[in-house]
Amino acid sequence: MSERVLVKQLQAREDGPVSVSGWVETVRDQKKVQFVILRDETGAVQLVNPATRPAEDGSEQDAAALALTDLISNLTTGSFLTVTGDLKHDERVKLGGVEIKIASLEVASIAPAELPIAADSALDKRMDYRVVDLRQRRNNLIFRVQTTLEHAMRTYWVERDYIEIHTPKLMSSPSESRAELFQLEYFGDQTAYLAQSPQHFKQMAQAAGFGKVFEIADAFRADPSFTSRHATEFTSIDAEISWIDSHDDVARMQEELLQFAFAAVKEKHGAEIEELFGLEVTVPSIPFPRIPLHEAREIVKARGYEIPRTDGDLDPEGERQVSAYVEETYGHQFVFVTDYHPEIRPYYHMRDPETGLTKSYDLLFKGVEITTGAQREHRVEVLEAQAVEKGLDPAGVQHYVDFFRFGAPPHGGFGMGLARVLMLMLGESSIREVTFLFRGPTRLAP
Amino acid sequence: MSERVLVKQLQAREDGPVSVSGWVETVRDQKKVQFVILRDETGAVQLVNPATRPAEDGSEQDAAALALTDLISNLTTGSFLTVTGDLKHDERVKLGGVEIKIASLEVASIAPAELPIAADSALDKRMDYRVVDLRQRRNNLIFRVQTTLEHAMRTYWVERDYIEIHTPKLMSSPSESRAELFQLEYFGDQTAYLAQSPQHFKQMAQAAGFGKVFEIADAFRADPSFTSRHATEFTSIDAEISWIDSHDDVARMQEELLQFAFAAVKEKHGAEIEELFGLEVTVPSIPFPRIPLHEAREIVKARGYEIPRTDGDLDPEGERQVSAYVEETYGHQFVFVTDYHPEIRPYYHMRDPETGLTKSYDLLFKGVEITTGAQREHRVEVLEAQAVEKGLDPAGVQHYVDFFRFGAPPHGGFGMGLARVLMLMLGESSIREVTFLFRGPTRLAP
Repeated sequence: MSERVLVKQLQAREDGPVSVSGWVETVRDQKKVQFVILRDETGAVQLVNPATRPAEDGSEQDAAALALTDLISNLTTGSFLTVTGDLKHDERVKLGGVEIKIASLEVASIAPAELPIAADSALDKRMDYRVVDLRQRRNNLIFRVQTTLEHAMRTYWVERDYIEIHTPKLMSSPSESRAELFQLEYFGDQTAYLAQSPQHFKQMAQAAGFGKVFEIADAFRADPSFTSRHATEFTSIDAEISWIDSHDDVARMQEELLQFAFAAVKEKHGAEIEELFGLEVTVPSIPFPRIPLHEAREIVKARGYEIPRTDGDLDPEGERQVSAYVEETYGHQFVFVTDYHPEIRPYYHMRDPETGLTKSYDLLFKGVEITTGAQREHRVEVLEAQAVEKGLDPAGVQHYVDFFRFGAPPHGGFGMGLARVLMLMLGESSIREVTFLFRGPTRLAP
Repeated sequence: MSERVLVKQLQAREDGPVSVSGWVETVRDQKKVQFVILRDETGAVQLVNPATRPAEDGSEQDAAALALTDLISNLTTGSFLTVTGDLKHDERVKLGGVEIKIASLEVASIAPAELPIAADSALDKRMDYRVVDLRQRRNNLIFRVQTTLEHAMRTYWVERDYIEIHTPKLMSSPSESRAELFQLEYFGDQTAYLAQSPQHFKQMAQAAGFGKVFEIADAFRADPSFTSRHATEFTSIDAEISWIDSHDDVARMQEELLQFAFAAVKEKHGAEIEELFGLEVTVPSIPFPRIPLHEAREIVKARGYEIPRTDGDLDPEGERQVSAYVEETYGHQFVFVTDYHPEIRPYYHMRDPETGLTKSYDLLFKGVEITTGAQREHRVEVLEAQAVEKGLDPAGVQHYVDFFRFGAPPHGGFGMGLARVLMLMLGESSIREVTFLFRGPTRLAP
């Protein structure tokens, strides 16, 4: 075959023979001339064919020309094809200033006369036909942004000697609670649980002397909620580091990481994001603002919102209020909320001996929690005492505590939901829009 | 705290005060002087302390010095600690030519008097205490090699505009067969299956116009075998590309990818691999040798081995023989075996219209299969006919065929087991050795 040329390469290419492959976005089948807009993963180009119709007087016509015209008349939106033809630069052509005069056209796959969805179909219907939905330019861009974001994060870590690990998703013991847990039969009489987070295992890597680790992988929660921020399966971005003094060492790494990754996205996709999502990506300045939880509650109260929960934590509206305050006061989209009371944190969060509060934080981005980070308790006797204090069965946490029995360094880390970051960065209303194939309580296909 | 210095940074550092953190590898508690070998994720260093013992004549001694000596006498292997002291270059010190005279020592976590395993414990016991096992230098190196290998592969792809996708591991329909499939109850009356491969979904990305995609993620097989090459959960390296002419376009990408990634590993870790694994990493030349299956069978036969299977495929010993032949004849560790008969390939492999054979390959590395690659059949009517021919229920494959109903480009890809590549690259005898936490029929913990 002639070498395939990507649409984005056409503008810089000289006039002459060229071959492009992609799918049909529109066909304008006029009497004297036919136009096809062909899209590939890099852009769209106009193809043109001077139509040859059967002569009204019955006189003979070029058979190949008639056949080509007929083929184009019958092209359906979504059909995949390869076109060879003559590239011509023409500034009158709005779409990139080039067009291709079709010499030959090879159909790889013909789509049905009507596609099942349009760009403005309801979200749930679009998800039924995600294969077609993802052909939209903005949807394609989401996953190119995802690619850049993740690669920048991994590069940040790799350049700093972090080790990439793959922790098992099949576990013999549930995490601290049996809530929201998927379980399955494992070779007859055993029961396996799907990991809700890689946290325990990346902590094991610390006790194994790995120093600094990261993982970007699947996590599972049998969470029956239908909010815009929850999924039963999601991509979790995780890091864990040793020899920290407090959770703030983790926060400092995370803010640097996000600054680095957001800068990479802005540089590579900033203009296209502005065009297709109508917003500018802001590269966050560091340090991010830090606000202790009790101050955050005061701020929310002063703004006139009464948090209904009585446990001292923020609720989603409270989080939005804190972020709004930070945006107004510091012009920042991120804020670390710190100093959570042990009652609203898991038993394994380390506590500050002076204040009694946990050495942990939540990170809010544009009003939504995207991360919990913490220094973990690595001292076995303290860990066991804190588990008992929380009313947990000591036997139930042994599989976890055992990781620290043979020595462990002080350590901590964070977990961050990839889809939440993408959703907020791109101003989307739901993680469903930025997930390749969303999984929820009533969504297990395609 | 004083800034932590990594052991690998000590040699280049001037004499003077320094702080290091790590775990105790050995203690030599002599009467007049104490030595501790401290290891961190980057190396090991000798710590030294002139012992201060209670005076035999009962005269008074420096209390702090007595306490420090006592603390060191009681240090156990595996204990984690931070030491501040005086760095001194001394060429007589075998371990890196430096030592640190201990000024103060802070224990983060004390290990029990005896660790449960040693470097030469049986594999299964080492897996029980993987947290300790992974502290071995060679085990740590495995995961640094893994990090470099994966980052090089992702970099290869990202630089060539591949899109990174995260496909769901929870599926509503099993793959082509119900064999070796984990299933779970999903919100009451639904059944979910754990993905055995991301293949169907990365193919969906092709019909969605993504062009080129990759994913490195978990895959699951309820495989009851206990070989050195099988796991119930493993990390699968996957790529899929559009607009190919045949499986050979996939093979060409894969050989370039492997050459690039092996070169990165050799450059960064070659010397250390030679030291700890006693072998040299070979960066493969491209193109890799290609041998049609029928020729491969002739080669095996000529070497005096009769393949017992009657379906025309190679068996593991046959694969070893083919690789041995290729190594002897071409001096190459890799070989693509091509042109498999449809009977021993899945229904979705595209067939060559001239030969009737599938457009697919297996890639062998040092005698072990690490990949199956193929051009997939993207034409719905051909795909359905091939499924029926294989005796499959057409309804059972609809969830897959549906991806191509609205148009699809010609495409293909491969899946490759990360652990197999690492095992063979490092000359290890089992994927258990190169998996962070192995999962098998009788191994679900830790």
